[in-house]
Amino acid sequence: MKRFSLNQATTKHWPLPDLVAGCVDAGVTGVGLWREDIQAYGVEKSAALVRDAGLTVTSLCRSGFFQQPDWLEENKRALDEAATIGAPALVLVSGGLPEGSRDIDAARAHVGAALGELVPHALAVGVQLAIEALHPMFASDRCVVSTLKQALDLAAPYPAEAVGVVIDTYHLWWDDTVWEQIARAGRENRIACFQAADWVTPLPAGVLLGRGLPGAGCVELRRFREAVDAAGYTGPIEVEVFDETLWSRPGPEVLAEALAGYRDHVA
Amino acid sequence: MKRFSLNQATTKHWPLPDLVAGCVDAGVTGVGLWREDIQAYGVEKSAALVRDAGLTVTSLCRSGFFQQPDWLEENKRALDEAATIGAPALVLVSGGLPEGSRDIDAARAHVGAALGELVPHALAVGVQLAIEALHPMFASDRCVVSTLKQALDLAAPYPAEAVGVVIDTYHLWWDDTVWEQIARAGRENRIACFQAADWVTPLPAGVLLGRGLPGAGCVELRRFREAVDAAGYTGPIEVEVFDETLWSRPGPEVLAEALAGYRDHVA
Repeated sequence: MKRFSLNQATTKHWPLPDLVAGCVDAGVTGVGLWREDIQAYGVEKSAALVRDAGLTVTSLCRSGFFQQPDWLEENKRALDEAATIGAPALVLVSGGLPEGSRDIDAARAHVGAALGELVPHALAVGVQLAIEALHPMFASDRCVVSTLKQALDLAAPYPAEAVGVVIDTYHLWWDDTVWEQIARAGRENRIACFQAADWVTPLPAGVLLGRGLPGAGCVELRRFREAVDAAGYTGPIEVEVFDETLWSRPGPEVLAEALAGYRDHVA
Repeated sequence: MKRFSLNQATTKHWPLPDLVAGCVDAGVTGVGLWREDIQAYGVEKSAALVRDAGLTVTSLCRSGFFQQPDWLEENKRALDEAATIGAPALVLVSGGLPEGSRDIDAARAHVGAALGELVPHALAVGVQLAIEALHPMFASDRCVVSTLKQALDLAAPYPAEAVGVVIDTYHLWWDDTVWEQIARAGRENRIACFQAADWVTPLPAGVLLGRGLPGAGCVELRRFREAVDAAGYTGPIEVEVFDETLWSRPGPEVLAEALAGYRDHVA
């Protein structure tokens, strides 16, 4: 269980001090945090809170959104926050097509160029940029990076300590090329973050908030964990589930279920 | 405009005789029909209706669903219906994971084996089996075939006159490997059917009925048409849109919009 990390999105309405105390109570040593939450609590104050509790921050979610006019300053600021909070990686969701555009090739090329502009700052603050491929159902409005291969191709021009990838089971499970790409990600030293969530249907309207805790759906989660292990990854495993039903429930209860699902279906 | 074909799903509640008359009035010469509709009207009677109106049936939708216990008999029956209605191709949606299963590799392998069992009957009745890759968001519950490459790999062991593929812009637009796979589909003589629909967000609950007429969304539809043309395809182009708002509107109106969208964004 020592690789388990609770991503804050799973227990979205659990106040940060309670979440930190709840993790300590449950013997959880890692947390994945979100910018909006540490900003609300205070970034320095959040850093002290988790540090004093002996927790490790496994990633900071989330920046990217490279079609926004202020993407450069915003991503630099996010890198600074990641450094302050002690996160080794900053998760990047690339953003969708620019308003009114149909040119997905251009949008993807822009992501590659934007990464290049951020590399010096990432190296300077010692935080790895972690490109996340989102499920293709998000390609138009959230993330034009849809496969692990695309993420790795975008990372390829840059040093691995500056640019890595996120492997999220929810987004990648359907892709039969994902196994060879996980092996490649390991060879190229790009695995910045490994996140587990399960695929559940029917999808809700808007499709963002329909994920399941490990074991609730049809993803071969253990196969993913074994594949990242075989690729040489020894880092934390975040459980990150976006689900409104979970959000309405007490944090400790959801954490206990996340731990049980992790033990039975991932570890 | 002579390649345009109206897929019946676009105007789902337009009764078949009215749809046929409406197509003739609009100068449309091709229709893609659905099994449930021609069964309800009578398959022989439907065949006579479209033949007497001078229309060409461009495809019959839809069979497949290989995880059902009766898949073999059901698909043979569907091939017979396609032959009766004069459809050159029978569109196959493979079905999702078997109840309770997480083994997507096995489900995909079963589709390949099932195609092999259907090939003799397809050759006997002179109807091409047309495997359709559906968007990955349908991988668990509707179709484990998620990319054009997978569809072509599944078709590869069998003669092209027996097994082809459907190229549907709605399902494939996000995939940056689709262009090389369209070229391959042409080289291998596998393009059985080309369908156009647009991608619109936000997706509705269940995600099935959220498509748009050509031009309503972000798909590079003309790029697809040019790619299938460059691959040597000279056949019909079906507009197939599943959308509840369209279904609530008069057939002639929707057909006129489909024609305008086709002209402006596909042709």
